[in-house]
Amino acid sequence: MTSTPHRQSSAVLDVPKPPDLSWHVQARLPVDYEVVITRGLLSEGNGVLARACGSDATAPTRCLVVIDQTVAGLYGDALQAYFSAWRIEPVWKLVRGDEGAKTLAHAVEITEAMTEMGILRRTEKVVAVGGGVVMDIAGLAASLYRRGVPYIRIPTTLMGQIDAGIGVKTGINHGQHKNRLGTYCAPEATLIDPEFLFTQDQRHVTNGVAEIVKMALVKDAALFELLERSIRGLDAETLASCGPDAREILSRAIAGMLHELAVDFGHTFSPALELRADPPLLHGEAVAVDMAVSLALAHNRGMLSTPDAERALTLMRSAGLPLTHPTFTVELLARALEDTVKHRDGLQRVPLTQGIGTVEFVNDLSAEELARAVAFVAERVISEVPPAAASAPAPAGQMRAIGEEFSDSEHVA
Amino acid sequence: MTSTPHRQSSAVLDVPKPPDLSWHVQARLPVDYEVVITRGLLSEGNGVLARACGSDATAPTRCLVVIDQTVAGLYGDALQAYFSAWRIEPVWKLVRGDEGAKTLAHAVEITEAMTEMGILRRTEKVVAVGGGVVMDIAGLAASLYRRGVPYIRIPTTLMGQIDAGIGVKTGINHGQHKNRLGTYCAPEATLIDPEFLFTQDQRHVTNGVAEIVKMALVKDAALFELLERSIRGLDAETLASCGPDAREILSRAIAGMLHELAVDFGHTFSPALELRADPPLLHGEAVAVDMAVSLALAHNRGMLSTPDAERALTLMRSAGLPLTHPTFTVELLARALEDTVKHRDGLQRVPLTQGIGTVEFVNDLSAEELARAVAFVAERVISEVPPAAASAPAPAGQMRAIGEEFSDSEHVA
Repeated sequence: MTSTPHRQSSAVLDVPKPPDLSWHVQARLPVDYEVVITRGLLSEGNGVLARACGSDATAPTRCLVVIDQTVAGLYGDALQAYFSAWRIEPVWKLVRGDEGAKTLAHAVEITEAMTEMGILRRTEKVVAVGGGVVMDIAGLAASLYRRGVPYIRIPTTLMGQIDAGIGVKTGINHGQHKNRLGTYCAPEATLIDPEFLFTQDQRHVTNGVAEIVKMALVKDAALFELLERSIRGLDAETLASCGPDAREILSRAIAGMLHELAVDFGHTFSPALELRADPPLLHGEAVAVDMAVSLALAHNRGMLSTPDAERALTLMRSAGLPLTHPTFTVELLARALEDTVKHRDGLQRVPLTQGIGTVEFVNDLSAEELARAVAFVAERVISEVPPAAASAPAPAGQMRAIGEEFSDSEHVA
Repeated sequence: MTSTPHRQSSAVLDVPKPPDLSWHVQARLPVDYEVVITRGLLSEGNGVLARACGSDATAPTRCLVVIDQTVAGLYGDALQAYFSAWRIEPVWKLVRGDEGAKTLAHAVEITEAMTEMGILRRTEKVVAVGGGVVMDIAGLAASLYRRGVPYIRIPTTLMGQIDAGIGVKTGINHGQHKNRLGTYCAPEATLIDPEFLFTQDQRHVTNGVAEIVKMALVKDAALFELLERSIRGLDAETLASCGPDAREILSRAIAGMLHELAVDFGHTFSPALELRADPPLLHGEAVAVDMAVSLALAHNRGMLSTPDAERALTLMRSAGLPLTHPTFTVELLARALEDTVKHRDGLQRVPLTQGIGTVEFVNDLSAEELARAVAFVAERVISEVPPAAASAPAPAGQMRAIGEEFSDSEHVA
């Protein structure tokens, strides 16, 4: 998180007393940022972005635009026209938006662009435009540069708009580890325009839907029902047009995410899958596979009724999300759980649904339960290949792979 | 600054309202850390360090000791014995403590050591032992690793004990820029044992004294008078023995630093000098040269009486601090001021003493004033070479260099 030395001056100090002199420094650093859904963000008449950049068009200012090169191709001209109209001089820093670009070196390159333009850190903003990767590396760069400069997020993917773009996390992958290095650093504002979704392909839209389903499962039964009613038509165009349903879905997903930053539902086993799947899975796809097995774990413990488990799996399938993956074996799950225990400090702390819309944490999952859960999902995978997993082997193959692992499950624990 | 997602859950959210949906996220992240002066930190009977590492000797734990290789040579055995007595298994990470080692690559190496040992981030601490550079790179590593793990600082130099070790800043140099990248990230505790100073050479002690003099000049007239009385005997042994005067000096310097994190007195022109001086100056030496010219600027504006200016310069000289440097020309000062204006967002914001013990910020320094201030200091440099500046040319040379620049000063603005 960014702060300034000035905020620190609110420190409350004890008077030092011999023989052991000690001070207890206490302060509370304010975090304060806005998340705004607006339409026509790049229309000259829409002042939201200009205000975020500190411009009222009466005096010139500058900003550093860190933008996904693909997004620049689609929206670069519109952005340039917008900035010109508002007397904002953009310095462009094009970056790659793929997961492989989420490196410390790329974040450092962005800080070098700040140095090069001599950014004025109190008045000139860093504006990150793109998907989750761009949000992450630009956010990390902004939080590291001279210990923090203000930045604005404009997520252009559904995943960015309801997840990566609205939280306070930044991060990069390092070694074999996802998000190994990063900071908590809130942007000044996140500006969300669903119209960017017009240019997003369906697989990436579905990827974002996975996180919306997650939110529904862990804390919003009404959102779950709304999704059940509308999931079949929930494509890029519907979301981008932002009718009443789409608006409520986005709005509930965002509000849920802002309230619920700590819940890792669907993120226990998915990092291991995301790391190993070849061809690669999108984040939301891996999360979906994790959620499916988590639902099964909850079901088998009596935390989720059979009808509710079926509803949840059906919703995910209807959204076009994968429920299984050949790499997602019982052995992988057990190893992922071990890793999770390390990261969660000796406890499993696995979130499982307690009915639809609430979540509880468990610490005593066994290898045998993992195997039964994998089998539960496998039994429910229908023969239809979901569109988003088209590149994965056919379900028959998936089930065989799972079955093989199942018979080995005793060796896992 | 480190935070956990849980803290974020205190966010206060607006209810979204159409047509422009927006949320205002507000939270206050607690900062809470201790600064403790203790003696015999490495004596087995002293539980301060063990408690900071989460050990009461009843159960084994681990820590990652990031330690200056020179300090490890001096205190490694004592640390190992202490840890063994308290059932703490240290993983050692030896690092260089020179300014050239303050790089991102070295901070990243420390995070890799955390990965390698599989540090448990809620219970196992990173313990940084050494001078300011070690505090900085270990602190940055701790704040980046998985978005922040708790760490403990044990500064072993005077500069570390009264400045770099007790604040919340971390940082590394990048490109030509000091502390270009970094974070605000408070340690859980800073443990200060003056006895470490027994093994510090006089030049480095004097280096730390510069920051104590700074503190006295900007906010503590009583500390200034205490320094005037005791400066001649204020060597490593006196400080390490921690008699009443030494204890009060350390204590006031630390309290002042904790209260006054925002004041950059002596840090306007010194970064440029520190970057260019060859042979290199220590940080405190460059700060001293900056403070001397800042005192002159204040004097020439009538903000500091002539006797007080003389007292301050005399104190610095008695401490063995340099007041001038051949590289510290009017041209350099003007360029440094330009840089500062960039960093301070278009304003000079130069802190100058308003009498001894208070400070005011000015925004209208002229090149002509800089030249007069340099001349003022030059006139007061006595022929005796201060011990700390023994490697610099003799004062006659210094004055000639300054005089040459002085005659050129009109070309600077």
